Amino acid sequence: MHSGKILVAQGGGPTAVINQSLAGVVLEARRFSGVERVYGARHGVRGIVNEDFVDLTQETSHNLELVANTPSSALGSTRDKPDLKYCQEILEVLRLHQIGQFFYIGGNDSSDTLRILSLEAAKANHPLRCIHIPKTIDNDLVGHDHSPGFPSAARFVAQAFSGANLDNASLPGVYVGVVMGRHAGFLTAAAALGRKSAEDGPHLIYLPERTFTIEQFLADVKAVYERLGRCVVAVSEGIHDAAGTPITSLLTTTVERDAHGNVQLSGTGALADLLCEEIKSKLKIKRVRGDTFGYLQRSFMGCVSDVDQREAREVGEKAVQYAMQAGRDGSVAIQRIGDYATDYALLELDTVAGKTQIMADAFISASGTDITDAFRHYLRPLLGSGMPDGFRLRANPVAKLRDATG
Amino acid sequence: MHSGKILVAQGGGPTAVINQSLAGVVLEARRFSGVERVYGARHGVRGIVNEDFVDLTQETSHNLELVANTPSSALGSTRDKPDLKYCQEILEVLRLHQIGQFFYIGGNDSSDTLRILSLEAAKANHPLRCIHIPKTIDNDLVGHDHSPGFPSAARFVAQAFSGANLDNASLPGVYVGVVMGRHAGFLTAAAALGRKSAEDGPHLIYLPERTFTIEQFLADVKAVYERLGRCVVAVSEGIHDAAGTPITSLLTTTVERDAHGNVQLSGTGALADLLCEEIKSKLKIKRVRGDTFGYLQRSFMGCVSDVDQREAREVGEKAVQYAMQAGRDGSVAIQRIGDYATDYALLELDTVAGKTQIMADAFISASGTDITDAFRHYLRPLLGSGMPDGFRLRANPVAKLRDATG
Repeated sequence: MHSGKILVAQGGGPTAVINQSLAGVVLEARRFSGVERVYGARHGVRGIVNEDFVDLTQETSHNLELVANTPSSALGSTRDKPDLKYCQEILEVLRLHQIGQFFYIGGNDSSDTLRILSLEAAKANHPLRCIHIPKTIDNDLVGHDHSPGFPSAARFVAQAFSGANLDNASLPGVYVGVVMGRHAGFLTAAAALGRKSAEDGPHLIYLPERTFTIEQFLADVKAVYERLGRCVVAVSEGIHDAAGTPITSLLTTTVERDAHGNVQLSGTGALADLLCEEIKSKLKIKRVRGDTFGYLQRSFMGCVSDVDQREAREVGEKAVQYAMQAGRDGSVAIQRIGDYATDYALLELDTVAGKTQIMADAFISASGTDITDAFRHYLRPLLGSGMPDGFRLRANPVAKLRDATG
Repeated sequence: MHSGKILVAQGGGPTAVINQSLAGVVLEARRFSGVERVYGARHGVRGIVNEDFVDLTQETSHNLELVANTPSSALGSTRDKPDLKYCQEILEVLRLHQIGQFFYIGGNDSSDTLRILSLEAAKANHPLRCIHIPKTIDNDLVGHDHSPGFPSAARFVAQAFSGANLDNASLPGVYVGVVMGRHAGFLTAAAALGRKSAEDGPHLIYLPERTFTIEQFLADVKAVYERLGRCVVAVSEGIHDAAGTPITSLLTTTVERDAHGNVQLSGTGALADLLCEEIKSKLKIKRVRGDTFGYLQRSFMGCVSDVDQREAREVGEKAVQYAMQAGRDGSVAIQRIGDYATDYALLELDTVAGKTQIMADAFISASGTDITDAFRHYLRPLLGSGMPDGFRLRANPVAKLRDATG
């Protein structure tokens, strides 16, 4: 059973393919004769309590296809994390507009909102189907092989380090690139896929799954620099000490916290600058450069994985099919069924909601500063087709004449 | 007249297409029967005084084509700026190896090295042809319509701001993106080409061609934020006060200087962080994010203009033709002869050497914080084909029900 009106919204940080899922929902829903109206809420759950809806039934299929290929959340997003009262207000608005299905495209916070909504709707005997459509560049959803948005961001990170390694080889020194990821190191680990030859960087990778100490970091950098005359380092913004305190907040006097109580890690170059200062002052290396990839890694226009596009579209389509046919709420999860092949499953919201998946030990090398072939094998097919590839000149040295005569 | 041995080297910051010029030199030189050997110096002029040469005659054409499509300097680069003594040492090594032509791919510092070498060779009656092959993402070579490397970096900046604008529209706030460019604002100005609709960012662009004051900056940001509820800002790393002091060095206690005596501007997020802090504290805007594009804008693997590739290849080819046929030293410059069509000219080294071209007043709006259609017209053809394009949903608002009943 389904009502004539459905609602879709986007929450949390945008990705390169989040609009694929939106288009998947809208275009698939239009195929069901019982669906009269497809509404979109502007800026996620905030758009619901503000009754800020757009009628996507009036949007052309052609433009939806173009929007699907555009990065960032076309409906707008929000960082609001609704509590019980907020959720009850959402339910009131949904009831008023006779919304029968709500599709929320987001990460683990968004899935937790849906969990609360699902419970409250059941309690109130309100017939509402709540479907979570995954998206996160952090790739930290429990039960999901991977999440749409991650592959394209991973591709950006791999391409960035591939180029940064060549730049660093050309003008040798130490290069530190800081990558997004609070608790899960998947995106930072993707830097390793930019490597081709044994001496290519990143030579060191620091993940939030391992404890970070500045002393070990400096010793690691020193060893690589002495061996190769240069060093490329990938660092997760979420690196922390043994007590779990982010290295960033150890360095700054005032920190900003979001609605979830998390310290703001992105949107500042502080961590890269600090690490570079440590290297310069303690290791006496002159050429030390730091980049913070910041919002480029999730918003850059023109770096996308075609595999990610396809899967993001399909989770949107499957969400509608599950809502219409499965008769229960849930989270649409990508399941890996071959090398490389995927299918989809509808997980219980409880499985996903508010939980965080981190990298398996099998993905991290014993040194703690590299990844394993298992991770390489996991990630490579997600990056999609047409990955750029770098080539270098062969060494054909010319004999020195001054040495010969001198 | 030409000798049987030629030498090519790459200096200064790498670009996405600097290896196109290298391949152009090598492949074109091989067509001349009199050329017996094509040497490459590793890490620019430093490779000459170190006699660190590779024999490019032994490289396959196929691999040269692959290297041409790889960003960063395949021969390695250097920041060395040779003085007279250094130049005399270069000449000694070139004489020892019987190099008849020297091709140096670089910016205005590299052209100045060639100017000194050319003068000293003439004085010493040493038959050496010195040809400057342009490359710089700063686009600051006098007499050159534009320089290879700039179009691809400009494309990166335009794509980055195109995506950052969408991200900022999705999660509104203030976004500050810091772009490379010490004296010339061309690359920062390219941010404007990421705009599509009137309300798209970057809403404000700060160039080193104009004096920067923090008071005016804050007033500008405030005005845009009050009008749109968000603000995207492009800032050149080279912005300075009325006395010419970089804003970056006003904020930091220790600054690093390069071999040319310039304050280090890149490789640190300090400027973006400072500007964001000012906005947060003075304007009381909560969501303020800063990114420093850093090395990504010149080294990112997979963002290149096909027009830039073609022209970078041709300046390399033309350099060899001029060296063999023109009988004089010089700098190979792109000349715009149509809309859009180019040809090449051999300028005197004096015209280019050590000089800096900045943006013409006709390219900068009267407000000083935007560019003109003249600049748009100048830059657009350089960005090449296949620029990604963003699309958005049309506004089809749904009537509010709570307002109607409340």
